[in-house]
Amino acid sequence: MLREEERKSIEPDSRMAALCLERDPVLRSDVPIPIPSGGEALVLVRLAGICGTDLALLRGYASFRGVLGHEFVGEILAAASAPDRVGERVVGEINVVCGCCDACHAGRGNHCERREVLGIRRRDGAFAEYLTLPLANLHPVPDRVPDEAAVFTEPLAAALQITRQVHIDPGQRVLVVGAGRLGQVIARVLRLTGCELAVVARREHQRALLAAVGVSWVAEDAVATAGFDVVVEASGTPGGLALARRALRPCGTLVLKSTYAGETPLDLAAVVVDEITLVGSRCGPFPSALRLLAEGLVDPSSLVDARFPLSQAEAALHRAAEPGVLKVLIDCR
Amino acid sequence: MLREEERKSIEPDSRMAALCLERDPVLRSDVPIPIPSGGEALVLVRLAGICGTDLALLRGYASFRGVLGHEFVGEILAAASAPDRVGERVVGEINVVCGCCDACHAGRGNHCERREVLGIRRRDGAFAEYLTLPLANLHPVPDRVPDEAAVFTEPLAAALQITRQVHIDPGQRVLVVGAGRLGQVIARVLRLTGCELAVVARREHQRALLAAVGVSWVAEDAVATAGFDVVVEASGTPGGLALARRALRPCGTLVLKSTYAGETPLDLAAVVVDEITLVGSRCGPFPSALRLLAEGLVDPSSLVDARFPLSQAEAALHRAAEPGVLKVLIDCR
Repeated sequence: MLREEERKSIEPDSRMAALCLERDPVLRSDVPIPIPSGGEALVLVRLAGICGTDLALLRGYASFRGVLGHEFVGEILAAASAPDRVGERVVGEINVVCGCCDACHAGRGNHCERREVLGIRRRDGAFAEYLTLPLANLHPVPDRVPDEAAVFTEPLAAALQITRQVHIDPGQRVLVVGAGRLGQVIARVLRLTGCELAVVARREHQRALLAAVGVSWVAEDAVATAGFDVVVEASGTPGGLALARRALRPCGTLVLKSTYAGETPLDLAAVVVDEITLVGSRCGPFPSALRLLAEGLVDPSSLVDARFPLSQAEAALHRAAEPGVLKVLIDCR
Repeated sequence: MLREEERKSIEPDSRMAALCLERDPVLRSDVPIPIPSGGEALVLVRLAGICGTDLALLRGYASFRGVLGHEFVGEILAAASAPDRVGERVVGEINVVCGCCDACHAGRGNHCERREVLGIRRRDGAFAEYLTLPLANLHPVPDRVPDEAAVFTEPLAAALQITRQVHIDPGQRVLVVGAGRLGQVIARVLRLTGCELAVVARREHQRALLAAVGVSWVAEDAVATAGFDVVVEASGTPGGLALARRALRPCGTLVLKSTYAGETPLDLAAVVVDEITLVGSRCGPFPSALRLLAEGLVDPSSLVDARFPLSQAEAALHRAAEPGVLKVLIDCR
């Protein structure tokens, strides 16, 4: 699958096309191709996905400057320390960790104090022709998982992080607030638990996508007060958070899955009186996500709204920012 | 222990002394003695304790009006459905529940939708000569537990609720923020887990009380950032909450144990990025608390600051509201 001529063309000072977040996002064609260090690989990006966090970064979240993008599938082009892995089709974990701080030693590498995060924090991302990542971050994609599914590995892993952190009992009533690109993936993971699942969905096409996988949707004003054992907030809006809180029963668990900007007021006295548990949830297990994709237990293909070439990456971002739009992909080859 | 003449003196329309929260707290001597309904008991209050929640109620929390007080030890004076329990020395669970709502059926009676809460919500409390509670709420006090210890059963149970909700691994570093009347009890419970425990304490006498039970204290400005696996916020102040959040490591658990007034701003993006778990915690298991008292594993007697007769209940509240004051008891006999 790898194009031999491309692999050879990368000389010192080679340049590539990439969508850079400067003051605004700008597509450049003269971005230096990153040079992998010892344990890293140079990855040719095949397909990348736009996530809500990318749009939050555009609005100033995390003060990131550089190449955007953290959801991708690509091919290893070069890897000095593991030449046998060259040619592998891979997806990549986005946290690049030091391996020697307290968090790393405690098995919480994703919370490494010195971490870089692909396209989010101090490391150029995936809306480019090439990226580098440590070999340890790169997971081979099973042949039967097409690029269009593999590109969902990162958000699917993030959805699975919920079931790592919170025990979802199949007898429980679970509500997902938000039926956007993240909420839809979360719904597809949580339905696998057998729980009584409902998703708050505003738009017709969001509702149809849920119905197509047998998940009930509910309108905002029809959500039962204190009716759910677990609520996952995936809208990232103050209104969604208020709805999530209202829908949760006493002693229930509220999972926060979205990127919120600024401080959000919360009635902590009610959290104490109702003995609520709030759980912040971020990145999850790639191997599990790849298993679900390989077995066809999650098929995210219907969630693709549009596909743009890298040369039209700015237009892709505009499309992704339109209300109700689901996954927009960028073809980087 | 029961005074026979008192038991006989209660006729219809009998009156008693009680500290009532009206616009301000007022000691009245003409409060009707409550009449127990079918499954309830009339309890002669021996000793009651003043809690931070009582002081919050004075400031308008929960809009309560009526007899204050929810920490007590007393004697069953009358119980139509269980005459054999008359004379029992008892402590009482404060939530009076319906037994037939969803929460009650699910085993979460403390979150009964129709609950009354002794001295807090729609039910007169313990700063009085008499109170009524359902027999099911009343736990006999072992003989070897003196009144001065038994009166701590309710806050001790509340501290034990932390270990019901959160697994404290004895290898963990745990911080309690606040060394007041609640923080001191929490520290005495958590030291029993064998964890590496520290308590943020401002005042000399608070530090001395911790040192006396072998618990380390730490000054606010010496708390290590991200240094703790579990942090219990027991100060009830915004500054204490900020300190608790700062002291917690990524993926750690922050237990909220205090009564907060109004909405508190919280950086939810950081809760998500750091994958923090927040746990609201309220009432706990009385039988466990009584076991710890009976075995002498927790001895709260050194936490008593002062003891006032019911006739000086207003002065007792004033004393309890002074900065740094620990437990103030009211002698109700």
